[in-house]
Amino acid sequence: MKFELTKDFLEEIIEAIEVDNVQFITEKVLKHYPADVAEVLDAVNKNQAQYIYQLMDEEFASEVLVELDEDVRDEFLASFSNSEITTQVELMDTDDAADFLQDLPDSRKDDILSNMEDVELSSDIANLLSYDEETAGGLMAKEFICANVDWTVGETLANLRKQAQEIDHVYTVYVISEHNKLLGTLSLKTFLYADNETPIKDLYRPNPIAVKTSVSDREVAVVMDKYDLVAVPVVNEAGVLLGRITIDDVVDVMREDAERDMQLATGVTEKIEATDSPWIITRARLPWLLVGMVGGILGALVIGKFEGQLALFPQLAFFIPLIAAMGGNVGVQSSALIVQGLANNSLKFDSTFAKISKEFLVAIINGAILSILIFGYNYLFGADYRLCFTVSLALFAVILLAGIMGTLVPLMLHKYKIDPALATGPFITTLNDVLGLLLYFWIGYAFY
Amino acid sequence: MKFELTKDFLEEIIEAIEVDNVQFITEKVLKHYPADVAEVLDAVNKNQAQYIYQLMDEEFASEVLVELDEDVRDEFLASFSNSEITTQVELMDTDDAADFLQDLPDSRKDDILSNMEDVELSSDIANLLSYDEETAGGLMAKEFICANVDWTVGETLANLRKQAQEIDHVYTVYVISEHNKLLGTLSLKTFLYADNETPIKDLYRPNPIAVKTSVSDREVAVVMDKYDLVAVPVVNEAGVLLGRITIDDVVDVMREDAERDMQLATGVTEKIEATDSPWIITRARLPWLLVGMVGGILGALVIGKFEGQLALFPQLAFFIPLIAAMGGNVGVQSSALIVQGLANNSLKFDSTFAKISKEFLVAIINGAILSILIFGYNYLFGADYRLCFTVSLALFAVILLAGIMGTLVPLMLHKYKIDPALATGPFITTLNDVLGLLLYFWIGYAFY
Repeated sequence: MKFELTKDFLEEIIEAIEVDNVQFITEKVLKHYPADVAEVLDAVNKNQAQYIYQLMDEEFASEVLVELDEDVRDEFLASFSNSEITTQVELMDTDDAADFLQDLPDSRKDDILSNMEDVELSSDIANLLSYDEETAGGLMAKEFICANVDWTVGETLANLRKQAQEIDHVYTVYVISEHNKLLGTLSLKTFLYADNETPIKDLYRPNPIAVKTSVSDREVAVVMDKYDLVAVPVVNEAGVLLGRITIDDVVDVMREDAERDMQLATGVTEKIEATDSPWIITRARLPWLLVGMVGGILGALVIGKFEGQLALFPQLAFFIPLIAAMGGNVGVQSSALIVQGLANNSLKFDSTFAKISKEFLVAIINGAILSILIFGYNYLFGADYRLCFTVSLALFAVILLAGIMGTLVPLMLHKYKIDPALATGPFITTLNDVLGLLLYFWIGYAFY
Repeated sequence: MKFELTKDFLEEIIEAIEVDNVQFITEKVLKHYPADVAEVLDAVNKNQAQYIYQLMDEEFASEVLVELDEDVRDEFLASFSNSEITTQVELMDTDDAADFLQDLPDSRKDDILSNMEDVELSSDIANLLSYDEETAGGLMAKEFICANVDWTVGETLANLRKQAQEIDHVYTVYVISEHNKLLGTLSLKTFLYADNETPIKDLYRPNPIAVKTSVSDREVAVVMDKYDLVAVPVVNEAGVLLGRITIDDVVDVMREDAERDMQLATGVTEKIEATDSPWIITRARLPWLLVGMVGGILGALVIGKFEGQLALFPQLAFFIPLIAAMGGNVGVQSSALIVQGLANNSLKFDSTFAKISKEFLVAIINGAILSILIFGYNYLFGADYRLCFTVSLALFAVILLAGIMGTLVPLMLHKYKIDPALATGPFITTLNDVLGLLLYFWIGYAFY
């Protein structure tokens, strides 16, 4: 019964809500996976979502809540009382609980946590909330299965049964010392073949791949991708096992990072979605548009210095868009590639000089080809020889400049720990435009 | 023993190779995880990689080979004989084997497969190779664990032990009918609690999430992300279980898609990496740069029509860069957001009219703010009133136009099954530039 939220189905659901058709909702909607029900809640309005929510049992409701879109989740949180939230959060995994409570004001968080019956659970969640959201500590959950290195297989299985009741997805058993230091891993598969008497010592895999709590979420994604892990243990500086990150959370991080990079390239400063209100979208876009406008004003000032010449030789104006556009295109092609190379860590061993030389060579080839083509075009259409040379030389110079800047700027940003993806945004294209215009008119001045 | 390939370590490795220090390589390099050894092979040159490769035992070598960067893998494949490749491929999982052989010429593929001792394995791999690379069929592996729905827990465990020997990562047992139709799933965890006598029928979870072989790899990623799956079963049209896709392959797909989208936005036509040669990079960038140049020529023609006016009022030229740049920036902000919304499937329920209206509203607000600001700037600096109005009105019009086009074009491309990410590339910015210039000069013509 593959779930698909078509327009028709959505209309049926809304209609069922209108006429209070509880049976329809219970049988046609709530029988699906939590992620699907969350999709329905994301698509209906606030009141309709509340209606459906009231019909769920507590456990199912908590599973659906963690799948909700952020905006819808915040609406629900605003409508719940603190004690209602306490009940729901007690049913969630600790990492989901921490995410759920993350954006609430501290007073509400404290109230909710202090009212939990399970004190161990509430201090686990509080601990997770203390980590930066964008680190391994902020991604991890406290639910994991561990076995003491001195146990036998039989003792481990008995313990496993107890521990695994709380955990949905069991992939690996973490082997720890008596001081909770992570020593290795054991796959569940091992238990299919092992004798109850065998000591764990003889079976586990040492030198486990783990991440420290302070590592960035991007770094966690890189590690899990590199070693094809579905879960990675999280340790502190002393190697003590503190939590576990599962791949689904990392997949979310990867998706959000990709979207953010794309948005940075278009000069959008805060994370927005296509479903946000016009005001939010406007507010996120305006800052960089203003930067672009300042660039345009600078461009106007540059051209203004050559007003006299333009009056005499207005043909110079014809190719302003070409020069500006090509500078922008070339610059962003270079910077986007460097940014990706930095993200993939594939540029580690090339010296800065090597990287710039390669971009320079590419720029020379592209610049030469394009300059010759535009020269040919101008010549064919009988343009003044001065215009032919001005445009071609300027184009060549601008492409070289844009290629070099497109390489240097992300590398410099990266060196000073600033997100190099900023180099793919309008700031750099604007800079390229202005410098390009300067070059163009200086060269024009020389020829005319 | 966390692995890190620093410049120093790499130099030590290269030096060890030079002096034939086998012990160093065996103890300091080959003791690491396959993904780490692959990282070393990616970083050294061809001969050095061969040297290290010769020192590995067969099984480890096959694990390293599947982790290699594509270019390095192709170099190795070129250096191996067909029978060497047959030996390696026999040790790999079927999906890795299919990927490994994918780009070889058919004659080599046939020879390698026909020389395999295990006929079942070679026909499995051949079957996988028959699917389009970018579909579920192309991603899946034939290794999975299944249980007949009529078995008991005890019978399943006995079978599991046999099947699991071949499989590294066991997450879920797939429950099938006697005709191999997928009926449901069983997590390994269940076996911790179940009695050997209990029938599987009573324990398994029905209505499994599965994908058809024809589904695109992007769709698979969406499904696995949505339901937080680490593995998804693949079925044919009749619901028969054919294979399994694990999350690590999907993570690779996601990463490559994100990189490709970013490159499309900068007008790069084939997938390139920062480590590619200058010729490959040039070849991938040139087509779109030519498009940009054609746009620049069109721009020159447009401005050319107004040569007379420019001679009289060269101030009109000052703001050409501003108009062009703003049109480009606004257009790409709109299109990038729509493209992301389409990829996330979050725009499903907004009508086309709703989407355009929202972008239109954002464009009006941004356009109004920026037009007023530039009017203020021009007025303050004593520009001719005609210039003030021309620039402001043109800017407003261009922003509206760019906003609408930035919304319409990706939606139209999507409707005709063309990748909407093309709309974020230089083609659209070029179009916006030219139309913007036309608007600007028409308005100028009216005022002057």
